[in-house]
Amino acid sequence: MDSNPKIPDKVGTYRFEAEPFHVDFTGRLTLGVLGNHLLNCAGIHANERGFGIATLNEENYTWVLSRLAIELDTLPCSYEKFTIQTWVENVYRLFTDRNFALLDKDGHPIGYARSVWAMISLHTRKPADLLTLQGGGLAEMACDKPCPIDKPSRIKVKADAPVSSLRARYSDIDVNGHVNSIRYIEHILDLFPLTVYREKRIRRFEMAYVAESYYGDELSFYMDDEGNDTFAVEVRKNGQETVCRAKITFQRPAGQSPQAVS
Amino acid sequence: MDSNPKIPDKVGTYRFEAEPFHVDFTGRLTLGVLGNHLLNCAGIHANERGFGIATLNEENYTWVLSRLAIELDTLPCSYEKFTIQTWVENVYRLFTDRNFALLDKDGHPIGYARSVWAMISLHTRKPADLLTLQGGGLAEMACDKPCPIDKPSRIKVKADAPVSSLRARYSDIDVNGHVNSIRYIEHILDLFPLTVYREKRIRRFEMAYVAESYYGDELSFYMDDEGNDTFAVEVRKNGQETVCRAKITFQRPAGQSPQAVS
Repeated sequence: MDSNPKIPDKVGTYRFEAEPFHVDFTGRLTLGVLGNHLLNCAGIHANERGFGIATLNEENYTWVLSRLAIELDTLPCSYEKFTIQTWVENVYRLFTDRNFALLDKDGHPIGYARSVWAMISLHTRKPADLLTLQGGGLAEMACDKPCPIDKPSRIKVKADAPVSSLRARYSDIDVNGHVNSIRYIEHILDLFPLTVYREKRIRRFEMAYVAESYYGDELSFYMDDEGNDTFAVEVRKNGQETVCRAKITFQRPAGQSPQAVS
Repeated sequence: MDSNPKIPDKVGTYRFEAEPFHVDFTGRLTLGVLGNHLLNCAGIHANERGFGIATLNEENYTWVLSRLAIELDTLPCSYEKFTIQTWVENVYRLFTDRNFALLDKDGHPIGYARSVWAMISLHTRKPADLLTLQGGGLAEMACDKPCPIDKPSRIKVKADAPVSSLRARYSDIDVNGHVNSIRYIEHILDLFPLTVYREKRIRRFEMAYVAESYYGDELSFYMDDEGNDTFAVEVRKNGQETVCRAKITFQRPAGQSPQAVS
């Protein structure tokens, strides 16, 4: 990986420690906290290179997360140090692919993530052309560090009755006035009984963000069991509009699948 | 404060930055995130002095949070640096008082907190004698740095019908297998409509922890409006046993009350 001399500059590296209140009952970092860290690292990395929200907001642009896929061998335990690396893989006209690696305390990869972002104008809600933005500098951030996990897939959910529903409350709403991207993940994980997390771990989690939801919206969760420990979930607001879709694959810790990360 | 030469050693000082996903829709740090930081600092401070959970668990003791009172002038904004200081005020046979100061990016106090802890044996669930524990060293941690907010009060709730209820799920449960102390705060804050947070801020939040609740427990929230923007809340599990009580005082940002902190 170090054979490409351009990579070190282009890859952002951020160090963390798993706080005791950021782990679940199994003692491992929650996927929600990891998701927050990923988005936070994306923001810092973009900001350091002149493409952060602070700069963009001056010009009334903001980043919008469209897809997120996380694939994990394991997660850090309480008080364990870990590292997140992030880099831009591709820049297209309307979307950019940003990838992540999760490294354990010894620097070994224990997971990867892929994300897809668009940039929109806060005035018009229309997408920006990422290839010409700020003199085209975004494309220069791209690098070819490997990210050995599948791209986010198309998620379809057939279920016609919700398994659960809730109303978006104060704690769900972030500074943009929307339900926080990561809160959807937490609500979706809460659809599964504790026994699932006792016996299995999350191998892969994918999110496709379709529309925003707001305070007071009723969020309903539709779920398909696709077999092989894989579940597809669609979140709809107020009985109709799709807000996001997710796909979760669990795995028993013993008997790792042949396509294990790293 | 620096006139007591013993204070600097006894006060733990921990620096943070408000992460963008740790603020609410008003752009200020959430009380839940602040609460997690306080408990985390308490753990680190105790651990650094040989009274942390890692040491204690070897002898099958653990700290149990009994009371928490937080009083705030304001809270840090996204990306703002802040500092938490913590120290032990008193050590009694069954309880110890631990206080906190919240300092803004310039080191000025913007809030304080008081907490009361007991230590119990994980085997017998009986309280430990804090005055004789580990040769009596805990009492030597105490110092007299001022904490200019009221002690936690007695909270009584008269309401006989719940305003809300929910079932404890995966995301509520921490590494001890209980509903996380801070999740109660988040659920209680979610009882109030967004307009309350738009017009007012939380001036003081008190928690009295009475009993543990577990995965699958139905948590019901009983609320009294005490007037003067003050609300008392009791959380009961499965229709009967009290789990915790809270008291929340809101305040309009304009027209600070005379008893403002600092």
